[in-house]
Amino acid sequence: MAGKAVIFLISRELAGFIRGIEFEALPGTTVHMARLAFLDWLGSVAAGGQHPPFQKILAVIRGQGGVGQATLLATGEKTSCLNAALGNGVASHIAELDDVHRGSILHAGAAVIPAALAVAEMTGASGRKLLTSIVAGYEVAVRIGEAVTPSHYYFWHTTGTCGTFGAAAAAGKLLDLTEEQLIWALGNAGTQAAGLWEFLADGAMSKHLHPGKAAFNGVLAALLAGEGFTGAKRILEGERGFCRATAPQFDLTRITAGLGGPPYKIEENSFKIHASCRHTHPAVDVTIELARQNKIKPQEVANITVRTYRTALQITGDYRPATVYAARFSLPFCVALALKRGRCSLDDFNQDTLNDAEIRELMSRVSLVPDAELEAGHPACWPSVVEITDRHGRVYRGRTDFPKGDPENPLTDAELAAKFRALAGEPWGEKKAERLEKAVMELEKAENMRAVFEKF
Amino acid sequence: MAGKAVIFLISRELAGFIRGIEFEALPGTTVHMARLAFLDWLGSVAAGGQHPPFQKILAVIRGQGGVGQATLLATGEKTSCLNAALGNGVASHIAELDDVHRGSILHAGAAVIPAALAVAEMTGASGRKLLTSIVAGYEVAVRIGEAVTPSHYYFWHTTGTCGTFGAAAAAGKLLDLTEEQLIWALGNAGTQAAGLWEFLADGAMSKHLHPGKAAFNGVLAALLAGEGFTGAKRILEGERGFCRATAPQFDLTRITAGLGGPPYKIEENSFKIHASCRHTHPAVDVTIELARQNKIKPQEVANITVRTYRTALQITGDYRPATVYAARFSLPFCVALALKRGRCSLDDFNQDTLNDAEIRELMSRVSLVPDAELEAGHPACWPSVVEITDRHGRVYRGRTDFPKGDPENPLTDAELAAKFRALAGEPWGEKKAERLEKAVMELEKAENMRAVFEKF
Repeated sequence: MAGKAVIFLISRELAGFIRGIEFEALPGTTVHMARLAFLDWLGSVAAGGQHPPFQKILAVIRGQGGVGQATLLATGEKTSCLNAALGNGVASHIAELDDVHRGSILHAGAAVIPAALAVAEMTGASGRKLLTSIVAGYEVAVRIGEAVTPSHYYFWHTTGTCGTFGAAAAAGKLLDLTEEQLIWALGNAGTQAAGLWEFLADGAMSKHLHPGKAAFNGVLAALLAGEGFTGAKRILEGERGFCRATAPQFDLTRITAGLGGPPYKIEENSFKIHASCRHTHPAVDVTIELARQNKIKPQEVANITVRTYRTALQITGDYRPATVYAARFSLPFCVALALKRGRCSLDDFNQDTLNDAEIRELMSRVSLVPDAELEAGHPACWPSVVEITDRHGRVYRGRTDFPKGDPENPLTDAELAAKFRALAGEPWGEKKAERLEKAVMELEKAENMRAVFEKF
Repeated sequence: MAGKAVIFLISRELAGFIRGIEFEALPGTTVHMARLAFLDWLGSVAAGGQHPPFQKILAVIRGQGGVGQATLLATGEKTSCLNAALGNGVASHIAELDDVHRGSILHAGAAVIPAALAVAEMTGASGRKLLTSIVAGYEVAVRIGEAVTPSHYYFWHTTGTCGTFGAAAAAGKLLDLTEEQLIWALGNAGTQAAGLWEFLADGAMSKHLHPGKAAFNGVLAALLAGEGFTGAKRILEGERGFCRATAPQFDLTRITAGLGGPPYKIEENSFKIHASCRHTHPAVDVTIELARQNKIKPQEVANITVRTYRTALQITGDYRPATVYAARFSLPFCVALALKRGRCSLDDFNQDTLNDAEIRELMSRVSLVPDAELEAGHPACWPSVVEITDRHGRVYRGRTDFPKGDPENPLTDAELAAKFRALAGEPWGEKKAERLEKAVMELEKAENMRAVFEKF
């Protein structure tokens, strides 16, 4: 409108990519990673569905009703496509065990997969098309996340904000939107994108709402675009667009450089084994390894120094977690727990460990130190150096740049399957979990996604 | 969690206000303004319902279905509470004739009233409770808007962002939430708040989506809070909260100073008679008046200088509107139209006037000049000085600080009623419009809001 020269048209490049990506051209490693991402997400949804935040959104969704277009996975009931995206999105992120992309600090799966699955079920898409849309959604979310990280991340929960673009991309792919409609969908994804870190101060449930709303808002943007509802064409690079509004520093070239072919961003996915914030994992990994190798007992520890990057200290620097949930965002707590129990699984975070005097005492011996060298490597690496000094003055020192589950330090397929069965087995029963695992690992054979969860 | 001293607890003060406000204690002028605001909003919804953006959201809403809890006013059909809030919110803001609050640059009605009405219908609330919740919603939205204006407004469409808090407040009042639940509702309103000005570059439909989503998100936050879904307690003043994330400068004292009693912010409401962006109104008013008093003919005009505040130039500085919608955001177009036709009503913005050679020629004679003195008075005043020089060198000069419809320069009740009948008469028929006008002007007599639109 202001008659300026259009220098970028990033949304058009993204739209061209979303239109063009085809299952047949995807490398086998990409398809495999999409399957694993789906399986890992499904386990998180199963676990999350047992917890209060999901029960509360479920009550609201049931109260509003809707056409039975898609499955609320935690209960198996059918609801509208938008409600399914919302409910499954909320369930995704409660167990804090969902996947994460390191460079963008983004839980892409929690926002992208519920959106993709809801639209795939509504439209009766094939498993191949679903997997392709998941790859597209990750690509878009992660690239935008990389462009605005880390400055965006101080205020904004990237999973909520950038996740909305990914959800819109996946939904738009499944709806066969035209290039112009995809541009509008991205525009209306960006103008709905939200999610502030302020919830962390209270350990509030908003964190789970963010990916649910990202999925919902992305699907809404795509459905509206399909009806011809227009959106901003330069939502990313525009003078009053997403990047300028939410990131003091950003690099637009990250969004489009190398876009359109392998390697796809989904292959950079990291999977979690500890049930705590990913920023605690590097130190937890090193602590577990040092304690195991050197048989360090908690009562022998004089002090523990954790060196790491700034964001980890900002998000997980809490020495006084008041709730079990807050404990999962407390680096001192997680390191103390790792030292005492040799693990930080979902079951290890409970009222007993929260109130454990030995853990509290250990926490008081943990020093968190920002480290300029480690900071310089972040977020390409998520590094930590841990130094444990015992009461005899012996010093044990370890470092990791890549927490367990990163592509450079991967979980095996068998480890991921075991994680899925542990999470899904209790709420759904071993048999159903096994059946679903098999279905997901051959998702490309499903001709109609409606059938996969039909008798669920 | 970080163990900092809690200096503010603004959400608690707002929650106390929302809990405490009672119809019986409202001044008659406040109740009257709430009725007028509802009537004016209803006219905008009637007009907006005829336009493509509403038809598109309607298609999406119908596709998703839902329990028949509340009325989509443009068609009279029933849908879920959340869908009604969304659909009516979108319809509110299409005609660009909805009310505006000057100090916060906020269309509170477009976000607050659809949220309030949808919850009032769902819960079978009385007209008195609905009016009270509207007063509460305006109060919360406007005060937060005042705290972050003008710096927030550069990127963020306040109607979408601050409107979400107002919608949550109104919905929370109607749901009889406890103080703690209201705090959570405000927290989850803030973490969903969104809406970027980037749509303006394309004249995209996102502008209408913003109040619809503000209403939807606010109601969702309140419904969730009622289920016990927690939210950040310091969403406004917190270190990673709404104000710091979205406004380079803000003044938190504006939110709570004088909160809790009259005068209520809704009485500062401005109503629009021109169907263009409010920032064009001061210059349009002066132009119409100068032309009328001095019988200035378009062909006699040599040049027109419009002096005004910076935000008006940023939002409405477009000399090349490509669409009818964009024309309504073009100060040069609106001034030229006002000069030629003596008015800028909804009917005056069409393809004929957009392509009118005389109007285009007049536009080329309009100079827009930022003015430091006028800037200093904004947004308390929305001032403009217009100077028209004719071909004989005669200079006509006029100024306004308060466009027509501001509290300082008000429309009469009769003018507002005539505006409502003009907007609602065509889509709904004169009889229904008359019946509704009567119902709204005695809304405090309605025992159950479900009955008001039952046979609608």
